[in-house]
Amino acid sequence: MPVDRIREVRITPVAFHDPPLLNAVGVHQPFALRAVVEVVTEDGVTGLGESYGDAVHLDRLRRAAEELRGVDPWHVQEIARRVRLLPETGTGGDGTSGMVRSATADRVLSPFEVACLDIQGRTVGRPVTDLLGGAVRDRVEFSAYLFYKWAGHPGAEEDRWGAARDSDEIVAQARRIVDEFGFNALKLKGGVVPPQEEVAAIRALRAAFPDSPLRIDPNAAWSVETSVKVGTELAGVLEYLEDPTAGIAGMARVARAVPMPLATNMCVVAFDHVRPAVEADAVRVILSDHHFWGGLGRSRALASTCETFGLGLSMHSNSHLGISLAAMTHLAAATPNLTYACDTHWPWKEQDEDVIVPGALRFEAGAVAVPTAPGLGVELDRDALARLHEQYLTCGITSRDDTAYYRGHHPGFDPTPPRW
Amino acid sequence: MPVDRIREVRITPVAFHDPPLLNAVGVHQPFALRAVVEVVTEDGVTGLGESYGDAVHLDRLRRAAEELRGVDPWHVQEIARRVRLLPETGTGGDGTSGMVRSATADRVLSPFEVACLDIQGRTVGRPVTDLLGGAVRDRVEFSAYLFYKWAGHPGAEEDRWGAARDSDEIVAQARRIVDEFGFNALKLKGGVVPPQEEVAAIRALRAAFPDSPLRIDPNAAWSVETSVKVGTELAGVLEYLEDPTAGIAGMARVARAVPMPLATNMCVVAFDHVRPAVEADAVRVILSDHHFWGGLGRSRALASTCETFGLGLSMHSNSHLGISLAAMTHLAAATPNLTYACDTHWPWKEQDEDVIVPGALRFEAGAVAVPTAPGLGVELDRDALARLHEQYLTCGITSRDDTAYYRGHHPGFDPTPPRW
Ligand SMILES: [Mg+2]
Ligand SMILES: [Mg+2]
Repeated sequence: MPVDRIREVRITPVAFHDPPLLNAVGVHQPFALRAVVEVVTEDGVTGLGESYGDAVHLDRLRRAAEELRGVDPWHVQEIARRVRLLPETGTGGDGTSGMVRSATADRVLSPFEVACLDIQGRTVGRPVTDLLGGAVRDRVEFSAYLFYKWAGHPGAEEDRWGAARDSDEIVAQARRIVDEFGFNALKLKGGVVPPQEEVAAIRALRAAFPDSPLRIDPNAAWSVETSVKVGTELAGVLEYLEDPTAGIAGMARVARAVPMPLATNMCVVAFDHVRPAVEADAVRVILSDHHFWGGLGRSRALASTCETFGLGLSMHSNSHLGISLAAMTHLAAATPNLTYACDTHWPWKEQDEDVIVPGALRFEAGAVAVPTAPGLGVELDRDALARLHEQYLTCGITSRDDTAYYRGHHPGFDPTPPRW
Repeated sequence: MPVDRIREVRITPVAFHDPPLLNAVGVHQPFALRAVVEVVTEDGVTGLGESYGDAVHLDRLRRAAEELRGVDPWHVQEIARRVRLLPETGTGGDGTSGMVRSATADRVLSPFEVACLDIQGRTVGRPVTDLLGGAVRDRVEFSAYLFYKWAGHPGAEEDRWGAARDSDEIVAQARRIVDEFGFNALKLKGGVVPPQEEVAAIRALRAAFPDSPLRIDPNAAWSVETSVKVGTELAGVLEYLEDPTAGIAGMARVARAVPMPLATNMCVVAFDHVRPAVEADAVRVILSDHHFWGGLGRSRALASTCETFGLGLSMHSNSHLGISLAAMTHLAAATPNLTYACDTHWPWKEQDEDVIVPGALRFEAGAVAVPTAPGLGVELDRDALARLHEQYLTCGITSRDDTAYYRGHHPGFDPTPPRW
């Protein structure tokens, strides 16, 4: 059987509306950026991937794409080798306003690997889960991602979510998201208001949702002392405490002093960080993310290492579209030890704004049914892709910068941690 | 596309001639036992696996086989789940005369997983390497596995290898194996004669093969003190020192005192052993073996964990036939950080005694070219299988017991370590 090789790779930056969600380094800009990756074989099979849309990253993706022509889409390790050989080109491009300093090569590899798995699955008539050893669950649970937020972007109308400035408004936001999506676990993005207010918000969520696992993630905005204080106060309330403070050493100090597991998608975001974190016993849960751990295969390798070392596994999310949601769902479905509900920014997206044909992915009771169609099980909507690309061209944003946007309205804002 | 499920699993014990190779616990019996596993789908696709042939293990394989009917051969994780649910049935069945106490469930899973990968590859027209991310090398290097040995089995003629009792005879054996197979790395099975004689044999090998990586593996027959003494004496001579002493704690003591890396296929033989070994810094190289690490997928997970924790990776071997050699070759070819030449007992087998159609696997310059045909790339020879099964039925051996066989000729032999 002749090998069907990669003929062409298309990378299309897109922009979609994003509400003014607050975090430790600033606030989400009016548009979130993503790159849609299409890998096309000589026989015309197209695989899809999705990644960050920042200019630096787009440039890297385009240079990597040049290296992929002629490669067999089953030879993901050859693609990884070629990506690793690309010259390093400065910093940035992580799509996280600098909050997550992941490994560049794995970040670049990821959407191509996902697209190749999509091609493989389409070629052999199997969902991506089957290429990963088969689904161990038929639905993947996600968590409600709660944010302090402005009522709307400055100069625009109030958005449909309105403001979330205090515990009452966070609880109201949670109710609305839970009503709409059915989530059980609730995660509060913290590091935004003084820690005591965020503790109060968690207590209010506990009162309103007595049975829901609760998490707070201040993105390392707190000192070790503040983290210990918050962790001690919230004993028995949190499922896990996510990135309270910066760095493996600081996290290890907090870990020794608080009763709940610490989780991270900040101090362990690349394979090089795992051993030091284990040696320091800094975290008990790693939030994986195939967008920066090198794709689904390497995320599964991380999962196995977590199991071997007794670490829990959860899943991190950036603002994303449907291709990423499909990939996240396949990965989670095929990862036995991914036992926590996964993060997703999905509720914050305009639900009719995407690049895939609607209907393939639906939240029911807080979970997404795992697609069983070949590959990722989602199809590109070319008209929608063109619209979101046009939006990218006109929105004026080429790199995510939550800090600069926030400073535009709060001059002098300094996100340097620890803020508290 | 309708799913092609598992219809039938056949398990055929076979016996093949094995020379009287000496080790720390005794001597190889006249026949080595293996189980040949055939997994057949409803559409008639047959996948092959190979495992130990000990009675206890055969019984477990048969009970596992009962659970596999109706399972999709792409759902290896479901097969693993079913295997883990089987009731535990005593000890043994490791096919190693008790030297390697691996995890029962992973040992049982392995041949079924390999057979399912063979089915997958045959179904989609891809070699197994492609199902593992693609080969990163087109030939896999193996090492010459040197043994002290008797001239022949008692009561039989001297075999074609003759005796190996001292350094000269070990060097002569090495020359012959290297001439025939082209191996570069040389491994001496030690723990058989007093350590100073084995040191002398290594020195003689170094003199005769100045450029060959050298290893010695006394299967934990030495005390910590003896291990340190040998390791110190052989500074600069050994590529690695394999299992000089028993247990993670003992190995860690040796590791701190000798200059070369320690390797193991005895104190780290299951996922549960990895973390304690890393914490104790007991070994620098793990000899993986898909027969006891749960198959190719889980061996790849181990490989990734080794890379993450800065551990080297090599490959262990038992006496085996061609299905195992094919699986070992595919695994090694698709594992980037498997950088050491792999062990194999292949030269000790009658080269015309196998269960596969000859020709698919050939040693050239110490390496096997990676099969590129679909699946494992080997075909079962049913006549040969029947012959070797008949040999199993008549050979009188149902479980490997090197110690009992040795005691039959040296009553009172006590293999309890440390022997020196
Ligand atoms: Mg986080
Ligand atoms: Mg060994």
